[in-house]
Amino acid sequence: MSRSAIFLAGALLLADTVAGQTPAPKAPTMAEVLAASKPTDWRPLDPENTLYLELASGRVVIELAPSFAPRHAANVKALVREGYFDGLAIVRTQDNYVVQWGDPDAADAAKQRKIAHAQRTLPAEFTVPIPPGLPFTRLPDVDGYAPEVGFSGGFPAARDPRTGRAWLAHCYGMVGVGRDNEADSGGGPELYAVIGHAPRHLDRNVTLLGRVISGIERLSTLPRGTAAMGFYEKADERVPIRAIRVAADVPLKERAFLEVIRTDTPTFAALVESRRNRRDEWFKFAVGHVELCNVPIPVRPLGGGQ
Amino acid sequence: MSRSAIFLAGALLLADTVAGQTPAPKAPTMAEVLAASKPTDWRPLDPENTLYLELASGRVVIELAPSFAPRHAANVKALVREGYFDGLAIVRTQDNYVVQWGDPDAADAAKQRKIAHAQRTLPAEFTVPIPPGLPFTRLPDVDGYAPEVGFSGGFPAARDPRTGRAWLAHCYGMVGVGRDNEADSGGGPELYAVIGHAPRHLDRNVTLLGRVISGIERLSTLPRGTAAMGFYEKADERVPIRAIRVAADVPLKERAFLEVIRTDTPTFAALVESRRNRRDEWFKFAVGHVELCNVPIPVRPLGGGQ
Repeated sequence: MSRSAIFLAGALLLADTVAGQTPAPKAPTMAEVLAASKPTDWRPLDPENTLYLELASGRVVIELAPSFAPRHAANVKALVREGYFDGLAIVRTQDNYVVQWGDPDAADAAKQRKIAHAQRTLPAEFTVPIPPGLPFTRLPDVDGYAPEVGFSGGFPAARDPRTGRAWLAHCYGMVGVGRDNEADSGGGPELYAVIGHAPRHLDRNVTLLGRVISGIERLSTLPRGTAAMGFYEKADERVPIRAIRVAADVPLKERAFLEVIRTDTPTFAALVESRRNRRDEWFKFAVGHVELCNVPIPVRPLGGGQ
Repeated sequence: MSRSAIFLAGALLLADTVAGQTPAPKAPTMAEVLAASKPTDWRPLDPENTLYLELASGRVVIELAPSFAPRHAANVKALVREGYFDGLAIVRTQDNYVVQWGDPDAADAAKQRKIAHAQRTLPAEFTVPIPPGLPFTRLPDVDGYAPEVGFSGGFPAARDPRTGRAWLAHCYGMVGVGRDNEADSGGGPELYAVIGHAPRHLDRNVTLLGRVISGIERLSTLPRGTAAMGFYEKADERVPIRAIRVAADVPLKERAFLEVIRTDTPTFAALVESRRNRRDEWFKFAVGHVELCNVPIPVRPLGGGQ
């Protein structure tokens, strides 16, 4: 909103102090939290749970969340490993909603891409039993879509202690499994990424299995489709997928070495607080609230290097 | 999320009925609400409160909200009418946040675009007294950012009965006034539009003055700037503004004839309910909640024609 640096690390909010008294410790800005983070506040990506979606414009890196969609994550990897997506296309880009990719001929049994070993459909994984042993960093902030929201394993998530179920939340950049009207009609051959305001009403209605952690702009800037729901009207409007690969299958020198902030640490708790009440000088009104999908989950080159 | 039509008007959720009993009236889908709307459920744009942002890619139509930012709305019109923006540029596009436009040389007193009659800065209008006589359609749904949220005059808004103040909410497509660190350092020469998840923490921290009601995709698909905060690094990356015009100053044959749904009618209340609990067959889980920025405010050609 500003020509100057709104979020500069150095911007300080002057604390009210009384002469002769020690001022209360100033709460840090997000930039200050990140600058003070330790190497152990970050975790490297697991190459077995990382996908590279390769487009002409470059690479989109997706981290899978097998704790929340074990069968779908495994099936998408199986699809990837048999080359299912290579040469298919992005078929839909709807403004303020989703980018969707898969087989443009999926509805035509004669022309559709064959699947050798993976599954075309799977039972839905809209929710799962609360994953045992996986920390859940709960936000105290009210949420209208779920009894409890927070972060688990690096993903925005929700849970219901009453039912013992947990699920991922449709925040910006989340990746899910396209399906038809039947709950069990998805499986992984068609995937989507959120590129707009969080469509949280999709939570528990569709299986989410990961998050774009790098390259989302290669999806969010795509031309919007002009057919219903943002589908591309003509075949030549579709965006070809060169390949999707599991990072573990990619030669080391071609891999993206990234790390993601851990969401179960005091550093992450400080980051959340820095977004709940902005300490940057630009802000005049302390909000006292942060919505789940307004908390960033920072990603950086491995080791923090540039 | 589906290859088939998730949101088709004709998709029906089969009601549970008991033989011999009259089934309860089925709640309509949004498509059904819109199809059944009356001409009086819509309002034409006021050409005096409509701006056309003209880019090489086409037109972006912005509706001003003078009830919520009277001085800023008037000043932006004054800037437009003296040709202030013509030949300036979009200077910043930050993914999942904002597109911002104005004078790339604003910080250089020698080179900056001169202002003849309008104001360069104005006292902030972060909040205003609750506009008398302007209906406020309150959402019953919980909101973490404001005591009360809803729709007023066609815009997503919030209010605090305790303070008697109201303000617009930073939903997707909302247009606001860039400023520096001082609250009163904005005025209209630099504007922004939201192109990502609603940054509601900006509410009450910056003056909002309108909403993009057509052509948002001409902004949301722009290449993301690679300098800090999404500013374009090089001058030739900026997107030139051919002109901004007040619709009333544009010859009739060049105007966009659009109408916006009224937000103070039973039809709009039905639309909100259709988004709170989706009746479309695709949905398996009735959410029972809708967030302010997930309620669409439909726009269509005047009279509903295509």
